[in-house]
Parts: sequence; structure tokens; C-alpha cells
Amino acid sequence: MVLHQMPRWSARLFRAPPGWRRTCVLGPSMGSRWLPDRWGMYSPLVCRGYSSASGSPEVMLTCKRYPVQRLPFSTVSEKDLAAFESIIPGRVITDPDQVEACNVDWLRSVRGCSKVLLRPQTSEEVSHILRHCHERNLAVNPQGGNTGLVGGSVPVFDEIILSTALMNKVISFHNVSGAKGSCHIGGNVSTNAGGLRFLRYGSLRGTVLGLEVVLANGTILNCLTSLRKDNTGYDLKQLFIGSEGTLGIITTVSILCPPRPQAVNVAFLGCPGFAEVLQTFTTCKGMLGEVLSAFEFMDAECMRLVRQHLHLAIPVQESPFYALVETSGSSVGHDAEKLGSFLEQVLDSGLVTDGTVATDQRKVQTLWALRERITEALSHDGYVFKYDISLPVERLYDLVIDLRTRLGPLAKHVVGYGHLGDGNLHLNVTAEAFSEGLLSSLEPYVYTWTAEQQGSVSAEHGLGFKKRHVLGYSKPPVAVQLMQQLKLLLDPKGILNPYKTLPAQD
Amino acid sequence: MVLHQMPRWSARLFRAPPGWRRTCVLGPSMGSRWLPDRWGMYSPLVCRGYSSASGSPEVMLTCKRYPVQRLPFSTVSEKDLAAFESIIPGRVITDPDQVEACNVDWLRSVRGCSKVLLRPQTSEEVSHILRHCHERNLAVNPQGGNTGLVGGSVPVFDEIILSTALMNKVISFHNVSGAKGSCHIGGNVSTNAGGLRFLRYGSLRGTVLGLEVVLANGTILNCLTSLRKDNTGYDLKQLFIGSEGTLGIITTVSILCPPRPQAVNVAFLGCPGFAEVLQTFTTCKGMLGEVLSAFEFMDAECMRLVRQHLHLAIPVQESPFYALVETSGSSVGHDAEKLGSFLEQVLDSGLVTDGTVATDQRKVQTLWALRERITEALSHDGYVFKYDISLPVERLYDLVIDLRTRLGPLAKHVVGYGHLGDGNLHLNVTAEAFSEGLLSSLEPYVYTWTAEQQGSVSAEHGLGFKKRHVLGYSKPPVAVQLMQQLKLLLDPKGILNPYKTLPAQD
Repeated sequence: MVLHQMPRWSARLFRAPPGWRRTCVLGPSMGSRWLPDRWGMYSPLVCRGYSSASGSPEVMLTCKRYPVQRLPFSTVSEKDLAAFESIIPGRVITDPDQVEACNVDWLRSVRGCSKVLLRPQTSEEVSHILRHCHERNLAVNPQGGNTGLVGGSVPVFDEIILSTALMNKVISFHNVSGAKGSCHIGGNVSTNAGGLRFLRYGSLRGTVLGLEVVLANGTILNCLTSLRKDNTGYDLKQLFIGSEGTLGIITTVSILCPPRPQAVNVAFLGCPGFAEVLQTFTTCKGMLGEVLSAFEFMDAECMRLVRQHLHLAIPVQESPFYALVETSGSSVGHDAEKLGSFLEQVLDSGLVTDGTVATDQRKVQTLWALRERITEALSHDGYVFKYDISLPVERLYDLVIDLRTRLGPLAKHVVGYGHLGDGNLHLNVTAEAFSEGLLSSLEPYVYTWTAEQQGSVSAEHGLGFKKRHVLGYSKPPVAVQLMQQLKLLLDPKGILNPYKTLPAQD
Repeated sequence: MVLHQMPRWSARLFRAPPGWRRTCVLGPSMGSRWLPDRWGMYSPLVCRGYSSASGSPEVMLTCKRYPVQRLPFSTVSEKDLAAFESIIPGRVITDPDQVEACNVDWLRSVRGCSKVLLRPQTSEEVSHILRHCHERNLAVNPQGGNTGLVGGSVPVFDEIILSTALMNKVISFHNVSGAKGSCHIGGNVSTNAGGLRFLRYGSLRGTVLGLEVVLANGTILNCLTSLRKDNTGYDLKQLFIGSEGTLGIITTVSILCPPRPQAVNVAFLGCPGFAEVLQTFTTCKGMLGEVLSAFEFMDAECMRLVRQHLHLAIPVQESPFYALVETSGSSVGHDAEKLGSFLEQVLDSGLVTDGTVATDQRKVQTLWALRERITEALSHDGYVFKYDISLPVERLYDLVIDLRTRLGPLAKHVVGYGHLGDGNLHLNVTAEAFSEGLLSSLEPYVYTWTAEQQGSVSAEHGLGFKKRHVLGYSKPPVAVQLMQQLKLLLDPKGILNPYKTLPAQD
């Protein structure tokens, strides 16, 4: 079911004072401009730009698939519903169909059984809701665009779903981090999302300028500023960036938006081996320097799935590996010259065997689609086991090769692609259906392998529900303990996004 | 007294794997390469590259100048000294001359009365020292290069000085944030230092990849990684970046170092007014785009002081304002072309009335010295009241004008300069000597003025001792309270850098 509802919510772009970078503030107290909601809020699959899995089998309840016990929170009563109705009249949703869409993640891999969806419009409303929940010991699942990949954005049991759909709109955020479609800025910041242009623009930790957050007990914490520099006391907003809604609910964001580049070029290249991909990247860094804005790699298997399931044409000869290189700069001529020299160099030296370049927007998008729609192609291939890991770049592909041998016919496909420039591998394994046998061949093997390389078991997707038990592979016990202390300090009753991020405490 | 002691401490540069940005790890467990200590540790003034104020009058004790009460910490006993000696044999300094140099900040504005200086070499030594201090309730003042500007790096009373001089070396950090001379990387990160190229490379929060920190009770917290992306749990290292040694002592740092640019150009320009400086910056951003690496501004008064006290020649006609523009890029030709077009444009339009350009390293340094040595020139002008504030860029200079009128003959000079591109003004007021009358004309006026513009009362210098009481001008009570809770969680006895960063609790 897709509602094309106009959001009541507001967002404001701070227009640039002379010479200043644009900053974009999105939040309740900043209202001035109404934007249409592009996708509607009940369509997590549609959000990603491809067809919903209508007619697909029901997703198994998370509490049935995973060994997880409900914590002793209260259950929502008629009196609670009346209290919510008085805070946000007309925006307390209990219609099962509407709530159900928010119980399931967009990958259709986890499913909660919440019976209530709340749609606040202002920070004050969020504050009143949380104050009530805190007093009543009711668990809350904050939900942005519900585009997460680790089950962090849907309830595990009957947590109240607090949707920020009426509060967050993407305005000019795309340039910063590659946020797309209906992902919401609050959710994006809560996840510390990375994306396709992290290489150029860096982490949200450097580009988020200010936050307003509602704490578990309803207190509004205002760390909202549009200043680039502010060293007054501890930088509290950092606590909430990447904490996946477990420490507070982000209600307003101020973020630095670099200007849209005047010239964008994309090259799509075929490489004979992974060593050549690495050398192409080294060459690229040296020759493209400051105009390089993305360097993505994909293996042959990825491209075969994209062709097979989405019928996209691959514009270069079939190759063991592919790379997508993007430049973004302020001078069309200079960038073209730099890119031209680079391409000549990599073709002459045999690092690249075939390639194509795009400068007009439509062709740029066509080339990007080959990389961006891999996730979609994979979802058509069957059940997908997804891993998002950071590794030393020279070992980035070894795990894929290793797993193909290890899994043999157990897996349908083992593919690797991702943000080479950031040392970030997206490793995906498909099978006809979920299988415990395959899972036990994959885990903890993948995590152990990653930990042995001092890698990260979650580079950019966060831990959510599905990965929270693997935190210990990337963080020592002292760190995990301190995280638990921080959780206890900020959310003593544990009502905010329970069962997420931190491992269960025995 | 200057000791040219070879450090026993180690630092390692992770050599770039193919195509990877260089990351630099500095810390005890990484030893491989010895670097000479360029300045020696007992010369905070020499550290800044100009002559020490030998023979200058003794600095007044902080506890006499400021209304501050010693907290009930223990006093160092002979038994404590013996314990320290067993942890770091030969590196427990009690010689009054040696300790004295570390009691005074390099501005010679605050002075503690510590009797003990400890010089650990490893994280384990720091851990054992803190465990002992924690048990004994002994206060500790962590000290890096002692180049801070807000009295954060020297004791207020008799805190034990724990110097990281033997632990931190700058290797290739200069490119990232403009760290200079003998500022130490640990102190730099603790202060979340900004610097001259923040505009290009952004905040340390985005470029510090990993930290090892020793907590107040001696626990070693290992958040050390060289990965660009790691979203496993809360990003604990952020707690320590910018917390000025009040939450833990940073012992190892892993930091992203961008490659040294192949082409650097600097233009030094004269502008007829501040409005023209702003328009020059706007033009600059548009035309130089991704090669712009710094945009600094200085008023005429600054340059007069630089000429008067340091005898530096100003290479352009006398102007009401000056701007220093730096480009850093990968193509000499392209950058020169971009800079040339930009200069033609600003000269033709009258935004700039005179200018000079440098490409060779020596002249580049000469031009940079005009900006970088302003602090030094000011210190020769008398007692300096220093403010480091963030403001909306279009209002950046209004406060300087306002103060000149307000202070009249009370002040010797009121000057403004700073990182225009970051909205960061360094406002300095000089007088023949410290005067309560002048101070009360300046404060809280400057802070109130800044708060009314939603500015920050400390853009990059931190709060340290001297500014801790002004936190409330930039942060609401809820935020200050949460900071105090974090301090209590991480340092329940308050032994780490007491009297700093957070306001005194009544």
C-alpha cells in the first residue's frame, strides 16, 4: 500500500551568505518551505526505486527466527493510546495494514509485531511522547526512511514505532554523502551513513554541524548550530551520530553541503584482475587528485547479476573486475584533461582493458545505475546474506575468493563490490532460501577473518539488530563496557530502540 | 633552559598500500622509527619559533589572579614519588627549574605551582601512573606541547604534570590541519585543534581514525584503528577529541594524512573594505573550487603590528584589509590558470586593489609568515586579551569595529584576523598591562555579543581554564549538565585536568 501523502513537515535551506558554504538545517523549529514527499511513507521497497515485493511470502517474525527474549517493558494500553492521541491528534496509527508496512524492513528479512505507529511533527511532540513512554516503561523504535540493512529500523517485538517521516526531508544533502531516494536525514545521521562519495567528502562526523536530539526521558537537547567550528565543551552531538537511535531521537539536523560541482565525469572501466584495480586506484589518486569524487569496484559476478535480473547493458567488454571512477570539479576543461591523461595512462599500461566515459547527466546516471542497482539485482537472486566490512585495501577481495572455495555449491553466488577508496567491501552471498547450514558456514567465519585483519565487521551499515552480537569482533571488552555505561546514562530504562547495536547483557 | 634531548619515543608512518591514503599512527606500541625532538621540551616559547621571554617578569600564580579554590585532592608525598620512580625510573622530575617551565603557559598568562613532572614513554606507564593517582586521589594535568591559548595545558594548583613529550611526535600531520612546530598530536587531538587548512581538510573529528586513551582509573581503552570506516557501536574516540584531557589521556593516534599537494600557490591581496573581502571569498570559492586550501583575512592594524614588532615587509600597498589565499592541487598548470583567472577577476572588479603571488616555497613561507606571526607580534605589544570566536561570516568583523568604539583609549590596539573561510575570528585586544577595568569592558560583552549572533565563544582553542566559565554562552543548561554527567562517568574523582573545560559546580 502506497500513500502519496503530503508531509506537514518543514525543512529549510540556509541560503549562503557571501562566500559561505551552504548549510542545510532540517527540523521542526525551522519551518519555511514545504516539500513533497517523493515516495510516501508506507513503501519501503518502492523507496529504493524498484518494484515492491507484493505477493511475496510473509516475512518470518524476528522473535521466531532469532533467539531473542522480550525485555520486561509495559504493553501499550488503551490509556496510552489516548495519551498519544492527545499529543498528536489524528497521527496515532493502529490500522494493522499501515502498521505492518513499518514492522518489516525493506530487505524483508526481519519483522516486528508492533501495533502502534506514531507520526509526530515537532520536537515538542517527540518530547511529550518519550516523556510518556519513559514514565510508562514503554519501548520505542525510532524509524526514519526504513532503508537500513541490519534490522535497526524496525521493531523486534511490540515496540512503539515512532516515525520521523513527517519531520525529515532530504533537501540538498545528496552532494555530501550520496543519500538517496527516501532515506531520511535523521536516520542517515543516526546510522553515520557512508555512501558513494565518502572518499571525497568524508564522514558525517565532520560534516554534521549541529543536532537537536530528544533524550529517552523526553528532554530536548539542543546542540543545533550552523557554525563550522565550535570547541565549547564536549561535542555531545557525536554521541548520537551513529548510535542508531539507541541514545536519543534526532529531530533536527544542521549539515554542511558542499556546492554542486560544475563538472562531473564518470568513467566505467574493465580491469583484468584485482591487482590491476588497486593499481588503477593508485594511478587515479595521483593523477586526478582533488577532483576524484568516487572510486567503486565490482566483480564480474555482480555485473552478471545486474544484467540477468535487471536487463542492464554493460557498456564495456566482459572483464574479471570493473571500476567506476567519478570526477567532480569546478572546471570542465581541466577535469576532462586530467581524466583523459589518466585514461591514456591506465589503458597504455594494461591496467584497464576497456572503458567508457560519460559527461552528460543521463549517461552518468546510466553508468552509476550499474553500481547502485547491484543490491536490487541481488535481492532478485534469492535470499541474501549481507556483509559490510572494512579491510586493509590490499586484502579487500581475498575474502570473496576464500569464501567461494569454502562455500562451494552451498551458495548460489558470492559477490564482492564496494567503496574501494574507503577500504569498504560489500560482500554478498545468495542462496535459494535462508539456510542455517549456509549461515553457520558464513558466521562466525567472516567475522573472525575480518577481525584477524584488524578490519571492521560493520563499515557503514551499523549493527542494528542483526549484527549487534558481533560488536566484539571489532571492539575490545573495555570499549563495549563503556558503551553500555553510556547507554545506561542516557537511557536508564533502555526504552530506546532496544535489542539494537549493543549485545544483550546476560 | 632548553634541553635538546632525543626522545625515546616512537612513531610510525603506515606506508601506503596501493592506492590508499596514508595514515599515520603515533603511539607507544607502534615503535619503529626515531625522530629528533625539534625543540626540546622545556621551551614553550621557543616552541613557537621566536625568542623566549627570558628576563621578563614572573607570571602571577593562577590561584592568585583568579577566584578559584583548590579541590580536596591529596598532596604528593615522598611515597608517591617513590611509586612513580618505580614506574618510570629516571623520569620523575622534581628539579624546580625544570618543573617551573611546565607550570607556565607559553603566553605567560597563567601559572601553576606543581612540584612534580612525570615523563612516561608508554601507554602502560601512563596507565600505572593514573592507577596510582586514582587510588591516591592525586590530581593530574596532562601536557602535550604546551602551546594552548586558554590555560588548559598547565596546572592551576599543584596538579602532577604528566607530560606526553616522550610519547608524541609530529610526523606528516602538517598537511591535515596545519599543526606546527612542537604542538603535539595528542594535545592537538585533545583540543580538536582547527588551524589554517580546516577549510580544505575539515575537522579532526573526520580525520582521526583511531585513538588509544588511558582513562582516569588507569584502564587502557583501545579504539585504535587505521580504517576509514567503522560503524561498530558508539564512536567512543569522539568523546576524547576536544575534551582537553578531562576525560582521558590520549596516548596513541591514528590519523588520515592527505598526500602533500604537488602544486601550492599563495596570493597575498589588499582589499578596500571588509565587504570586498567577503566578495573576494565568494569569487574565490566559485573560481578556485576544489584547489582552494586556505582563505585567511587580516586587518590593517594586524599588519602594522607585524611590521612594527617583527620588522616584516608587507609586499602590497597599505590597505584596510588583507587576504591570504592558498591553492593546493595536483596540476601546476591547471592551478596557475585557475588562480590567474581569479586574480584577473578580482582586480578588474575592484574587489582587490593590490596583490602578489608566490609559487616557490620560500616566498610562500614569507607570505604565510605575515599571517602566522600575528600572535607573536601581538605578544610584543603588551598584555593581550584573546578571543577566538565563530560568527556568521557576514558579521565577522562587526565586533572588532564595535569594540574599538566601546573601548576607546582603554585599549592599545583592537585587531581582527582569522580563518574567514570557517567563520572564525581571532579578536585580540592589547594593553600596556593587564587591567581589571579593560577586562570588565570586554567581558561579558564579547560573549553576550557572540551569543546573540548564535556564535561560538570558542571556535577552536577550547575552553581550558580561562574560558570554562563562558561555556553557557554557547551551550544550553541541558547540554552542560550532560557534559558533567559524562565527566562523572569517566572520571568520578575528577582527577583529570581539574578546573578545566567545565564550569565549577557550586
